[in-house]
Amino acid sequence: MTLAASPLDTGDTAWLLAATALVLLMTPGLALFYGGMVRTKSVLNMLMMSFVSIALVTVVWLAAGYSLVFDADAGGAGLLGGLEHLGMAGLGPDSVQGTVPTLLFATFQLTFAIITAALVSGAIADRAKFGAWLVFVPVWTLLVYVPVAHWTWGPGGWILEHLGALDFAGGLPVEITSGASGLALALVLGPRLGFRKDAMRPHNLPMVMLGAGLLWFGWFGFNAGSALGANGLAAAAFLNTFAAGCTGLLGWLFVEQLRDGHPTTLGAASGVVAGLVAITPSCGSVSLLGALVIGLAAGVVCSYAVSWKFRLGYDDSLDVVGVHLVGGVIGTLLIGVFAVDSMTGGTEGLLYGGGLAQLGKQLVAIVAVAVYAFAVTYAVGKVIDRAMGFRASEEQEHTGLDLTVHAETAYDHGVLGHGAPVTSSPVGSPAQKTKV
Amino acid sequence: MTLAASPLDTGDTAWLLAATALVLLMTPGLALFYGGMVRTKSVLNMLMMSFVSIALVTVVWLAAGYSLVFDADAGGAGLLGGLEHLGMAGLGPDSVQGTVPTLLFATFQLTFAIITAALVSGAIADRAKFGAWLVFVPVWTLLVYVPVAHWTWGPGGWILEHLGALDFAGGLPVEITSGASGLALALVLGPRLGFRKDAMRPHNLPMVMLGAGLLWFGWFGFNAGSALGANGLAAAAFLNTFAAGCTGLLGWLFVEQLRDGHPTTLGAASGVVAGLVAITPSCGSVSLLGALVIGLAAGVVCSYAVSWKFRLGYDDSLDVVGVHLVGGVIGTLLIGVFAVDSMTGGTEGLLYGGGLAQLGKQLVAIVAVAVYAFAVTYAVGKVIDRAMGFRASEEQEHTGLDLTVHAETAYDHGVLGHGAPVTSSPVGSPAQKTKV
Amino acid sequence: MTLAASPLDTGDTAWLLAATALVLLMTPGLALFYGGMVRTKSVLNMLMMSFVSIALVTVVWLAAGYSLVFDADAGGAGLLGGLEHLGMAGLGPDSVQGTVPTLLFATFQLTFAIITAALVSGAIADRAKFGAWLVFVPVWTLLVYVPVAHWTWGPGGWILEHLGALDFAGGLPVEITSGASGLALALVLGPRLGFRKDAMRPHNLPMVMLGAGLLWFGWFGFNAGSALGANGLAAAAFLNTFAAGCTGLLGWLFVEQLRDGHPTTLGAASGVVAGLVAITPSCGSVSLLGALVIGLAAGVVCSYAVSWKFRLGYDDSLDVVGVHLVGGVIGTLLIGVFAVDSMTGGTEGLLYGGGLAQLGKQLVAIVAVAVYAFAVTYAVGKVIDRAMGFRASEEQEHTGLDLTVHAETAYDHGVLGHGAPVTSSPVGSPAQKTKV
Repeated sequence: MTLAASPLDTGDTAWLLAATALVLLMTPGLALFYGGMVRTKSVLNMLMMSFVSIALVTVVWLAAGYSLVFDADAGGAGLLGGLEHLGMAGLGPDSVQGTVPTLLFATFQLTFAIITAALVSGAIADRAKFGAWLVFVPVWTLLVYVPVAHWTWGPGGWILEHLGALDFAGGLPVEITSGASGLALALVLGPRLGFRKDAMRPHNLPMVMLGAGLLWFGWFGFNAGSALGANGLAAAAFLNTFAAGCTGLLGWLFVEQLRDGHPTTLGAASGVVAGLVAITPSCGSVSLLGALVIGLAAGVVCSYAVSWKFRLGYDDSLDVVGVHLVGGVIGTLLIGVFAVDSMTGGTEGLLYGGGLAQLGKQLVAIVAVAVYAFAVTYAVGKVIDRAMGFRASEEQEHTGLDLTVHAETAYDHGVLGHGAPVTSSPVGSPAQKTKV
Repeated sequence: MTLAASPLDTGDTAWLLAATALVLLMTPGLALFYGGMVRTKSVLNMLMMSFVSIALVTVVWLAAGYSLVFDADAGGAGLLGGLEHLGMAGLGPDSVQGTVPTLLFATFQLTFAIITAALVSGAIADRAKFGAWLVFVPVWTLLVYVPVAHWTWGPGGWILEHLGALDFAGGLPVEITSGASGLALALVLGPRLGFRKDAMRPHNLPMVMLGAGLLWFGWFGFNAGSALGANGLAAAAFLNTFAAGCTGLLGWLFVEQLRDGHPTTLGAASGVVAGLVAITPSCGSVSLLGALVIGLAAGVVCSYAVSWKFRLGYDDSLDVVGVHLVGGVIGTLLIGVFAVDSMTGGTEGLLYGGGLAQLGKQLVAIVAVAVYAFAVTYAVGKVIDRAMGFRASEEQEHTGLDLTVHAETAYDHGVLGHGAPVTSSPVGSPAQKTKV
Repeated sequence: MTLAASPLDTGDTAWLLAATALVLLMTPGLALFYGGMVRTKSVLNMLMMSFVSIALVTVVWLAAGYSLVFDADAGGAGLLGGLEHLGMAGLGPDSVQGTVPTLLFATFQLTFAIITAALVSGAIADRAKFGAWLVFVPVWTLLVYVPVAHWTWGPGGWILEHLGALDFAGGLPVEITSGASGLALALVLGPRLGFRKDAMRPHNLPMVMLGAGLLWFGWFGFNAGSALGANGLAAAAFLNTFAAGCTGLLGWLFVEQLRDGHPTTLGAASGVVAGLVAITPSCGSVSLLGALVIGLAAGVVCSYAVSWKFRLGYDDSLDVVGVHLVGGVIGTLLIGVFAVDSMTGGTEGLLYGGGLAQLGKQLVAIVAVAVYAFAVTYAVGKVIDRAMGFRASEEQEHTGLDLTVHAETAYDHGVLGHGAPVTSSPVGSPAQKTKV
């Protein structure tokens, strides 16, 4: 009898199985988080943009995405992986990557690609043509997410191998990419009717809080799962994630109290998410002190950043820029300050004697990814807009996308208790015949 | 020191602990999925049918169900297990089954029995007498679920051992059994007042989507947990489950777009579930290509099957037949086409050179289970109907079961913001005195 | 090569990672459970009390709480732990406690402290000053939760080491502490306007059921996670937890049916929680029969206990006393009856031949913890009330805390379908300028 005939570790595999399920749940969680923030007339459309992203990205990932990200680098420049595993060719239940099944590793990584696409939808709430979104998601995944993920995590990726910037769980491919892409798409589509004039209040804040709760829960799979095993690094990443979400919440509410005189639930939910965004790249490399500061910084800065859109005029409806781009930049950058040897196995940040070197590397990676994601997404958005139109009609936007595109309304209380029936268009009315 | 004094593997146990919690969550998820689909006046009743199923099935399972399914076959014909573990006798924290604690294995299997009973309630939404449901669930679990589960998974069960049909995670005991039983019960109770005339739109589609999200999440415990360990088979089953849910969603929306001109959220939620239903029996035996095709087939076929009830006149209110029976048949049957040796350790489907043999076995199992479940459930339903009445009174159905049976209303916004109070009967009004 | 260079077990770690995420989710689950029970005008405030508890307790725990609970006893009397790990000093990714990373153990325990604080908020729904709550939570955590947790679980804690009372997952530090503290705070603040006169019906019962479902799910992490490993004890605790939740539900509904003539969803949700509360201390020491009886007893007794407040006049708004104090006492006490050697490794209850000894120890611990928690919380509440006022103004309470404190309303359906707009104060109205 020989020990360790297979390198597979059942404990590591058990955690990654659970973590993958947790990250999958984040996208329905995000759907509710976003869905609660929009007005009643377009909540279903918001939910649908997330749900179809799950399906579309999965197909793209299995067909080509996984191979292009995680195969050995194709040209040596660290730009894109190879084609060996197109269609998951050559992989089966016995394939092992590290100490876990390769199919599980591939599925875990798939859930990251999914939520990144779904995040972008927040920037174009209430006004996107649904058919255009169905085209955008696969194209964008291949042209934007896949290269950036290869740069950051792929074998031979230039950010990882040549530059030496760190990103534990997705500040670059997930947060900054989704934020920069959201900005680009918001510019392509233009602002909602009534932007900067009408109130556009969230239609259901308990739904927002439910979404935030599910995101928080799932985020432990996202961050601690990125250790790819059940070990001390996973535990430290877990605790850092916990800490930063909390100080993010406190930071945001503190600003609101000082600035506006009242702490809001929308602020609490946004603050948690901002803290979690910022700790995503950094949870596996910084000290606990670093995590607390990073979360707090994100909560404070993002609480201001979300109002930039009103001054600058881009309608990033649900604050993908203000939370994910800004939070992602904060977290990715501050690795250069708070990285500790006990986590990174070498790299140290400014605060722990590592000098400015790592900070510089992080900055280069941030700029490269933000510029790339913005530029390519802008181009993709423009092409789609020319080809088929990316923006819903004024009449659709005014009436709401739910009824005009999906032939549904979110709520139909028909008879509230024994009260009078609420008027609403029955299914089958002419409004539903509009093509998506 | 000797290696492996106990066969228990902590990694396998860790995954099965998490998976069991995931499957438990599916029943509250199903409650919301169903609850959102019914009208406001009966949503609480819908939730209650699922919640009490958890409690009732648990008691039956611990008293007798576990023993009757998983004890060694009683008569050698593969029809029912023995009585050795009635009341969980002889099992304690040190009992081990395979590489996991026996008590955990028994609890994991319990969660399957629970959701199967809860699934049936979807066929009789809005019109069942609650007291009759409380009688039906334990009787049905013992007479229908328990035998079929023994046939399929019990030591010596005839489907597993004699016939040789495959069912990894419950196409036969869960999906086909619940679907055929739902059909039987829908016939016993007859259609809702206004069936085929009134619109009966879902009262809360975001609740449906939330339920679908929780079901999706929990389903990974259901399917990948059925590997009973944290290994490559679990990983492959996980990915197959992921893939089929996605193509199920795409298939259903594609049909809707072509047929009706608009993709709906109800279609998206139903499509995911249809794909997941179909991959349930097959996730542990088919190739990834098989999983993609099985999900797609389920999405497309079920999107048509849910309208059969309008033509044929049985009121399967929330489409247990159209989704679970039809989806379960598709998935169980297509094992005979897409089974691969690398997953099954021997059995191959038609596509991979295995001929028609396995397809035939799958068909025999499907017919046997469907006929048995339909017939016994119909008989049980009729007996209960004669003995105590299974159908709520017309007045209860008209007013809604929430107020008349549970003395509650789902929502009481009393004062919406600063608007006028909504009229509703206060707790303690005469309507509540109706007996269940 | 040497075996087991590190004592860390990846399987145990995998389960504790998942369990910690599960317990974190319980607090958003509780927020929804509570939020659905209050009236529409204060639901956001209810959610906020839970969400800020997560953040505040985390900061306190990392700064001092963990050290004060789990460091070696400071004075030898078993009253409080030491200061060695203030600020988590000396702990890193390589620290191991038992077979899991110390940082993970600390985070798992943190989630217990969080939900205990959040539970207390149920007793003072609809009328607490938000700023006072922000002060109360950290002070209360340090003065009440931390000592009791050290007594019960800390190395050298007097209940654990000197008295020998058992508490597997938190009957004393979590359930009885939160219940007794809730009672104290309800007395400090006084009853809601209209208490015992107005109906005060839950505004959203599906939200209550959703919260109950998430709590149930997370509770498996709470109880089975307390085994601190993936083993047979975790499995037995899991099954006991399952069983008691179910009989709690059945017991409560049975009383409702007999007493009121109708089983309610609020009763089902409350019954599950009562059963889970009672099994929390006992899940790791009692037989399955014990678990079934303990859950049933809790369901029955708590269904009566929740009405005491109307007779005695304390406004424990969401029944923290009736469910958590009473349920916690039942479960902690009955360990003395149902403890079995196969679970405890020695201690046996009255039913299994252990005599009255253990029952006496359990009783002493219950009384000590209940008296301590009540007295200190009452004092803390009074001091805060004197210093800054703990009760919201009559005008705030009348209008609702959501609008007056958080400048938000939970729901804004603006235009329901195509109906008329609902009037509500826009953000920015004078009402929002009220200071918290």
